[in-house]
Amino acid sequence: MTPNILFVMYDQLRFDYLSCAGHPHLDTPNFDRVAAMGVRFTNAYVQSPICGASRMCFYTGRYASSHGAQWNGFPLRVGEQTLGDHLRALGMGCWLIGKTHMRVDAEGMARLGLSPDSEIGARQAECGFDVWTRDDGLWAEGPDGFYDRNRSPYNEYLKSRGYRSENPWADFANAGIDDAGDIASGWMFAHADRPANIREEDSETPWLTREAMTFMDQAKGPWCAHLSYIKPHWPYIVPAPYHDMFGPAHVPPATRHKAERDDPHPVLAAYMAGRVAQAFQRDEVRQKVIPAYMGLIKQCDDQLGVLLDHLERSGRMRDTVIVLTSDHGDYLGDHWLGEKDMFHDPSVKVPMIVYDPRPEADATRGTTCDALVESVDLAATFVEMAGGKVPDHVIEGRSLLPWLRGETPDWRDFAISEYDFSATPHCEALGLEPRDARLFMVFDGRWKLIHAEGGFRPMLFDLATDPEEFHDLAKKPGHEAEIARLYECLARWGRRLAQRVTRSEDQIKAMRGASLRKGILPFLFDGSEVPEELTRKYRGKAPARHVGKEE
Amino acid sequence: MTPNILFVMYDQLRFDYLSCAGHPHLDTPNFDRVAAMGVRFTNAYVQSPICGASRMCFYTGRYASSHGAQWNGFPLRVGEQTLGDHLRALGMGCWLIGKTHMRVDAEGMARLGLSPDSEIGARQAECGFDVWTRDDGLWAEGPDGFYDRNRSPYNEYLKSRGYRSENPWADFANAGIDDAGDIASGWMFAHADRPANIREEDSETPWLTREAMTFMDQAKGPWCAHLSYIKPHWPYIVPAPYHDMFGPAHVPPATRHKAERDDPHPVLAAYMAGRVAQAFQRDEVRQKVIPAYMGLIKQCDDQLGVLLDHLERSGRMRDTVIVLTSDHGDYLGDHWLGEKDMFHDPSVKVPMIVYDPRPEADATRGTTCDALVESVDLAATFVEMAGGKVPDHVIEGRSLLPWLRGETPDWRDFAISEYDFSATPHCEALGLEPRDARLFMVFDGRWKLIHAEGGFRPMLFDLATDPEEFHDLAKKPGHEAEIARLYECLARWGRRLAQRVTRSEDQIKAMRGASLRKGILPFLFDGSEVPEELTRKYRGKAPARHVGKEE
Repeated sequence: MTPNILFVMYDQLRFDYLSCAGHPHLDTPNFDRVAAMGVRFTNAYVQSPICGASRMCFYTGRYASSHGAQWNGFPLRVGEQTLGDHLRALGMGCWLIGKTHMRVDAEGMARLGLSPDSEIGARQAECGFDVWTRDDGLWAEGPDGFYDRNRSPYNEYLKSRGYRSENPWADFANAGIDDAGDIASGWMFAHADRPANIREEDSETPWLTREAMTFMDQAKGPWCAHLSYIKPHWPYIVPAPYHDMFGPAHVPPATRHKAERDDPHPVLAAYMAGRVAQAFQRDEVRQKVIPAYMGLIKQCDDQLGVLLDHLERSGRMRDTVIVLTSDHGDYLGDHWLGEKDMFHDPSVKVPMIVYDPRPEADATRGTTCDALVESVDLAATFVEMAGGKVPDHVIEGRSLLPWLRGETPDWRDFAISEYDFSATPHCEALGLEPRDARLFMVFDGRWKLIHAEGGFRPMLFDLATDPEEFHDLAKKPGHEAEIARLYECLARWGRRLAQRVTRSEDQIKAMRGASLRKGILPFLFDGSEVPEELTRKYRGKAPARHVGKEE
Repeated sequence: MTPNILFVMYDQLRFDYLSCAGHPHLDTPNFDRVAAMGVRFTNAYVQSPICGASRMCFYTGRYASSHGAQWNGFPLRVGEQTLGDHLRALGMGCWLIGKTHMRVDAEGMARLGLSPDSEIGARQAECGFDVWTRDDGLWAEGPDGFYDRNRSPYNEYLKSRGYRSENPWADFANAGIDDAGDIASGWMFAHADRPANIREEDSETPWLTREAMTFMDQAKGPWCAHLSYIKPHWPYIVPAPYHDMFGPAHVPPATRHKAERDDPHPVLAAYMAGRVAQAFQRDEVRQKVIPAYMGLIKQCDDQLGVLLDHLERSGRMRDTVIVLTSDHGDYLGDHWLGEKDMFHDPSVKVPMIVYDPRPEADATRGTTCDALVESVDLAATFVEMAGGKVPDHVIEGRSLLPWLRGETPDWRDFAISEYDFSATPHCEALGLEPRDARLFMVFDGRWKLIHAEGGFRPMLFDLATDPEEFHDLAKKPGHEAEIARLYECLARWGRRLAQRVTRSEDQIKAMRGASLRKGILPFLFDGSEVPEELTRKYRGKAPARHVGKEE
């Protein structure tokens, strides 16, 4: 049976803000319910801790350095193969419901004469998806206009529901009301404990859940649907009753250590000095923001419950794979940082729960798997679930199916993640050219090395003795061997086969010797070296060379 | 003045088979004439010592691992930018006259709905060139049919000139007549000393020279014309009078040493045991083949003279840059090897002579330059000659213009070359999967390291003490530091920025801070942190949320 695939992504959801992952105060029974039906991968890493780049890795199954869309707003090059290309070729539809953060390669499409109005062009412009609903969930606006140049189906929905504003996303869904009756924007952390000025059912998560149910009710399988929520990504504000479910008492102390501020790596120092980090270093920010973040997650969990009930009722639970994951985490003040971007676990490690309804997966239901999983693995997994052979000359991830079946495959020894901060002010502050503003993480399950281009020293953490990643062991001599070993892993990865995308391994094997049988014989002294049939075209009576009027 | 660019490539022309490069027996006054007018680069390396891969590096300005067409017959992925894309955008035409060895990415074009019948599709199918004449010069035929599926303009020409055969390329241009009156095919080295059964003027090199002159006579500039000869590539046979200009007395002893056969690197051992190498290890093969190879070069030189005279007469010498180079060399029995594929200088180093008619280049006329030049540099050079800024997020080479002007730019400290032998029988013989059949050369001007995937040791040569590259220093301990240093160069190259092709460095700089002015403000406690204009859209009286029928 080819199942459907419900590929659910949350945005900026930390791996440890779920009860199944051990959160002390946040109960997420519906995430836990999927975990109990499937496998929870406890060491899942994204290939870049930033929305756009990470998502392009999920959607292509390729590393950021391979597909090249290495930061938000860097277009995914035209022709780069995506889940849509792979799955449609196997007879599976591939749909988008929510956010991708993809920027179209308009120049590349123009070069190839592709119009976004055509079916092919439209898919190229939406990283391979057929769009049921696209809404990237950031309808921010400033003096230079809107951040997102697309239309917002969510804003249209709100307007149709009577929210009177040019941008109800900003004025209602992501704002409360202050004591003077003015807009209390969710952009300002001081307002994070206020309820968003919106009926809960009209807020983004329930709206998108309904979009997904409507999709599923009419969809003919097999389909892959990327249900991609905007939340719990900032702005940190949530409607009642979620806005006061949690309070300062539920805010864990920041995972940070003064040793981290002592001679920090220059790139880390730049981030610690950045505006976001400065904000999250204030206790009042954490105490306002984290309860709202937890409320957003709680709402996500409740809506996941709605979705699961719908799957049960409609029979889809029996034929639909469910994947729950996120594009990256959120520092929330840990390590003196806010947001994501760097490589501590709160930023680069994500939830990854996979439920496969088929009997082959019965053996692993409710278990965890601590293999080093990468976000690029999902594309490979989906291709295999759709009945295909993973095109490993294109997709760099590996199918997780063996793990779901209780097998123990040979597996990677290290995970890679990358971060390109060339478009940030930190690049300039550090005196770097854009091409040198790049970081690489190599993590082998214990040791985590971070290499920075631009002539800086690396960072090194030993998660066995320092699971909180407080102590950068590369500050001082003493770990040269580990550093060299991890650099060797990075070098091996750097030489990977990533662009030979037009010939599969099988096609190459089939090529061998083919030229010989097509007359390419640059080794013959007299022809006796090969069977006569190979040289037959080069033998015979010499033909007359001069005929007719030409001589 | 924007000059025209006559980009002349010979196929399989060794760097040292020119009199200006010191050949003891071969006089090439016309190559020397261009060298006397321009700069001869004495350390020019191709990015892959095999026709197809090397050419795709020339045409894209990118390394083989970057564009992915890593062997003959591996298609260049659709959308990969080429000289044609870059030069046409600058108002310069880009034309092909001869060989490219490019294979179209038919699957990729079909995915994007591109037809080879359209202008855009046709250019995609011809690696960016507009085709004046395309002829890859290998009209080989065996029991499985023709090696090349295209039509042969050259065969059509021969037929029009009265050569009666289905494949006059094989029966006339590349064959003589033996003593019994039978075809003496040029595929068989035993026949290399016979004259090809064709009028000299009808053989491939004069034919293509005339094609080029016809093109130039009608072309409106500025144009870049890739005049791409098939010769002196095998089959090794040449018409009179070139067939007996040289004889065994002109054949230099093979540059080889018994130390090379002592514990050779497994990949080298496989190649030394291959059919081509076995043939070239026979003195009789060298004595037959090398005089024919020299005759083919002599003919190329004479035809270059015809071309230069035409440029003089037509005035084009004053406004046309001339580049003379090759896609790789030819072992001719050196190092116990035949053909190319490996990384000794006879294979991977090429002639590179550049004449620039403009006064800025006067200072360097007739000089040599020993900077480490790579074939990818030509694309960058041409873009600059066409008046553009090198798009260094796409083109990985560097413009040679500073060298032509007598400047001494900061330059690369190492050259890279790669070889993918996955489609050869050697891959199977060595027990490798296709993805592991890859070699990388790092050469810093003195030390040459060759890394082989698949778990083998590296090779190391010191060209200062061993200019003939006989002694692989990695066979024994003693050079760990050099090896580690060169591996570090390779690792640095492996992390290069090669796929972020949709955003230039300048575009990235311009992005900085842009999201701030579009309302992305995830760091505000109360808004007082930024000028009021940035938060204006998030302030004001809270609007009424429930209106009309919706409440």
